[in-house]
Amino acid sequence: MIKGLSKAGIGQVRDEEFIRLAAEYGFGAVDIEAESLIACVGLEGAIELLGQHKMLIGSIGLNVEWRRTEDEFLEGLKGLAQSAAAAAALGCRSCCTYILPATDQSPALFMAQAVRRLRIIAEVLGAYDVKLGLEFVGPHHLRTAWKNPFIWTVNDTLALIDAIGLPNVGLLVDSYHCYTTGFTADDLRKQLRSEQIVHVHINDAYDLPVGQLLDNDRLYPGEGVIDLQGFVKSLGDIGYRGVVSQEVITPLDATESPDQLLQRSKIGFDKVFS
Amino acid sequence: MIKGLSKAGIGQVRDEEFIRLAAEYGFGAVDIEAESLIACVGLEGAIELLGQHKMLIGSIGLNVEWRRTEDEFLEGLKGLAQSAAAAAALGCRSCCTYILPATDQSPALFMAQAVRRLRIIAEVLGAYDVKLGLEFVGPHHLRTAWKNPFIWTVNDTLALIDAIGLPNVGLLVDSYHCYTTGFTADDLRKQLRSEQIVHVHINDAYDLPVGQLLDNDRLYPGEGVIDLQGFVKSLGDIGYRGVVSQEVITPLDATESPDQLLQRSKIGFDKVFS
Amino acid sequence: MIKGLSKAGIGQVRDEEFIRLAAEYGFGAVDIEAESLIACVGLEGAIELLGQHKMLIGSIGLNVEWRRTEDEFLEGLKGLAQSAAAAAALGCRSCCTYILPATDQSPALFMAQAVRRLRIIAEVLGAYDVKLGLEFVGPHHLRTAWKNPFIWTVNDTLALIDAIGLPNVGLLVDSYHCYTTGFTADDLRKQLRSEQIVHVHINDAYDLPVGQLLDNDRLYPGEGVIDLQGFVKSLGDIGYRGVVSQEVITPLDATESPDQLLQRSKIGFDKVFS
Amino acid sequence: MIKGLSKAGIGQVRDEEFIRLAAEYGFGAVDIEAESLIACVGLEGAIELLGQHKMLIGSIGLNVEWRRTEDEFLEGLKGLAQSAAAAAALGCRSCCTYILPATDQSPALFMAQAVRRLRIIAEVLGAYDVKLGLEFVGPHHLRTAWKNPFIWTVNDTLALIDAIGLPNVGLLVDSYHCYTTGFTADDLRKQLRSEQIVHVHINDAYDLPVGQLLDNDRLYPGEGVIDLQGFVKSLGDIGYRGVVSQEVITPLDATESPDQLLQRSKIGFDKVFS
Repeated sequence: MIKGLSKAGIGQVRDEEFIRLAAEYGFGAVDIEAESLIACVGLEGAIELLGQHKMLIGSIGLNVEWRRTEDEFLEGLKGLAQSAAAAAALGCRSCCTYILPATDQSPALFMAQAVRRLRIIAEVLGAYDVKLGLEFVGPHHLRTAWKNPFIWTVNDTLALIDAIGLPNVGLLVDSYHCYTTGFTADDLRKQLRSEQIVHVHINDAYDLPVGQLLDNDRLYPGEGVIDLQGFVKSLGDIGYRGVVSQEVITPLDATESPDQLLQRSKIGFDKVFS
Repeated sequence: MIKGLSKAGIGQVRDEEFIRLAAEYGFGAVDIEAESLIACVGLEGAIELLGQHKMLIGSIGLNVEWRRTEDEFLEGLKGLAQSAAAAAALGCRSCCTYILPATDQSPALFMAQAVRRLRIIAEVLGAYDVKLGLEFVGPHHLRTAWKNPFIWTVNDTLALIDAIGLPNVGLLVDSYHCYTTGFTADDLRKQLRSEQIVHVHINDAYDLPVGQLLDNDRLYPGEGVIDLQGFVKSLGDIGYRGVVSQEVITPLDATESPDQLLQRSKIGFDKVFS
Repeated sequence: MIKGLSKAGIGQVRDEEFIRLAAEYGFGAVDIEAESLIACVGLEGAIELLGQHKMLIGSIGLNVEWRRTEDEFLEGLKGLAQSAAAAAALGCRSCCTYILPATDQSPALFMAQAVRRLRIIAEVLGAYDVKLGLEFVGPHHLRTAWKNPFIWTVNDTLALIDAIGLPNVGLLVDSYHCYTTGFTADDLRKQLRSEQIVHVHINDAYDLPVGQLLDNDRLYPGEGVIDLQGFVKSLGDIGYRGVVSQEVITPLDATESPDQLLQRSKIGFDKVFS
Repeated sequence: MIKGLSKAGIGQVRDEEFIRLAAEYGFGAVDIEAESLIACVGLEGAIELLGQHKMLIGSIGLNVEWRRTEDEFLEGLKGLAQSAAAAAALGCRSCCTYILPATDQSPALFMAQAVRRLRIIAEVLGAYDVKLGLEFVGPHHLRTAWKNPFIWTVNDTLALIDAIGLPNVGLLVDSYHCYTTGFTADDLRKQLRSEQIVHVHINDAYDLPVGQLLDNDRLYPGEGVIDLQGFVKSLGDIGYRGVVSQEVITPLDATESPDQLLQRSKIGFDKVFS
């Protein structure tokens, strides 16, 4: 597996600096926008920068708003091919989006719409040999944050993936969402195959009743109560060899410097991957 | 358009007799199971019987239970190709199923499942050049007959059809369900194209508030308050040339003879199609 | 049906002038690039211009090179959503491309590639409710213009469409290609359904043996030997209500003015549609 | 990986005996028809028999004739769901078919047809969680055994798989076909991912120029010139953990007893897997 970082947990830092720091602290991947990097330093510059630091891009984010109006969807779709081409040009084969566990719309209609829109998105990504990773979102408070419950479990997300029916769609497995939906390391090892996983997020949880954990108040890996060693071991057992990216979402910006946060992340990863 | 009959409204009558009677009263199509007819009289016998009475089969029913457990779905799927082949052998190009407007399952998961299962079903039917018609169900009391609302409008059903994403899936448009969902003849003419329609049901409604109309208590065409002339005219205006089948679901079996019921149906059709 | 014009047969004329002239000579549609028109006069300007002349855009052309290298395909794909959005914004629901009847590549591999690429293209177009029309190309000399024969008949093109398997893919039916593949007006009426047709081209052929007719040496409708009245009548019989666009490809640029050529086209259409 | 046997190389032996012998000689899988086994000994009997010998079914064969007329295809399709259900009931998740490298039909049309038919087949198999494995066929003499070349390389087969576009379609990788198409162990390790492989065949080749090797005259693993150790090692390197089944096709039936042939197979596997 490849240790990766997103900026959630590191703070605002320019892509070039982020790549340099990530390499310095022993990470092999960063989750950044390929298109932005290329816009900044050019395609050749981006390839050189990544190569020089032996850095991969773990995943780009999906910049198409598939959850709201048809107009917003169609507007976003215009830029997707360009975004996927940028990812592919930098060797990144993954593009991820999250699924909120509740919706103000009719859940049935929202699902039908999601299947159609995500299928179109996946076809475009697939043209560039990029996979679409769907992240289920576990924290309980979000299940009632909108009018109607939608989906939040591994199984329901797999049902959505099966409904889409394309080869390049899989899961983004996030340790926090696994924990808050009761999907254990053991479940992961027994129920998932590595080819179902497009990307992995890692982060930790406070020692609180699961139902009280907040989506935007997570801990650095190794600082909380989730069995992340088991999580990572199960990923290895099923043959997952991709990127495991830290994503620590917190209510306030960190007061430490990026250097200090990277040091802290490194310690967490060392512990979890030991 | 071709005037058709289902047995709902005519009563229990054997297929051969049904075909003979339908022809006698000027109908051009019956909705029966092609496979059963062939089982009774053989393939050649069935072709001859239909040919001799210039009778088409309007639509067969879908005999795969796609709404319940995976086991039931997979069990039913075993017989689908055979059933589609029988329909095709008798020139019938339509297979229909209805969608209940509520469900005890999670509506989102139920929709994801419906998309996947109906896609598989449609692929098999399509192999035999048979279309899948989806019937939305309008009566209000059914929307609360199970725990969670599902879908019941033309638009939501079209969203399901778009999620399935195959060329041979369309609507079964039933006049009762249009009426109970407020989809008028004018809406039909403006919003639907004929190639979206796989099959049509016709029947009438009591003069009651729309919210009180029961799914299983319908009237013969022309005996109620639905503007069926407008309905049929709109179908014609958009270029629909297929079968319009009577389906009169009632709480009690009719006390009249099939002959009398056919006579009654004929009068209704004559009025509506005039 | 709606009488339409492409610039093939009219000559180089700016879009605005083309629209004005087309309207003046009684045409209801022009085949131009929606995106170019919007680039010239703005979205509102384009809508107003078309509205003022009661003019539709019959079809845009597909600007994705799906026949050559993967790189060219992926490069072109970047602009497709934008192009489809422009078409949709101007009410145009059709985008067409032609299929050459021979290829230097392995025909089997070329077909597998065509299915995949055209499926991706059709998914993107479908998002904007735009159809993809595939034009088979009949002239015999082109069948040997590259190393290996590919496809050129209606039936083979329908097989490709079935392999793509999406609801928004159909035929561009061109009278010249029908004539040079022996697909008669009678065949059209008996074998095609209107929903299989995305767009229609009309033009005429010299009185030569069919095997000698050249792809780039066609006549104006009504000036040659094709039974175009029968062609148009069959289209009407099967319920086609879309655009029939003139496309007259000639080896030399016409020496007449656009005005004269429009007059000539008008005479041809009047004769054919009489 | 799991060592497996097909009857090609063992001779005619009843399924029950075959399972017993395979277990005795240390094999973990047999390629037999699940449906036939169930027909012989019942579902419970089959489960017990396999369980008692710790034996898996590696793959069933596809009993739908997708290469010839539409009638044959549609006839075969009737039995597919039943066949897939039988495989699934016995824990077998793979169904394989081969692709001949030449065809008497137009290669382009044959490909379009193959994509459509195999997509329908894969959808039905997928319902039962069974994968479809496509076997490319390498021997050179078959490339001219019919009028037109079709496909025979890994890359072209992957292009077909991409054209089908479903998640449950992959390769059957056969060592003989790899060898005769110049696809080395190194190529396998560098170019394939394990999830692209549905099933593996192993067998060996005479020490002849590659162009002279016959499809139906193969050797037992370890008795010929193919680098099977490298082949198996590459499979392991990319994470393949499925069945590797011996398939030794020979012009004459073996004169040795099944016992002797199994002993011979065991020696070959021991050598190759050492």
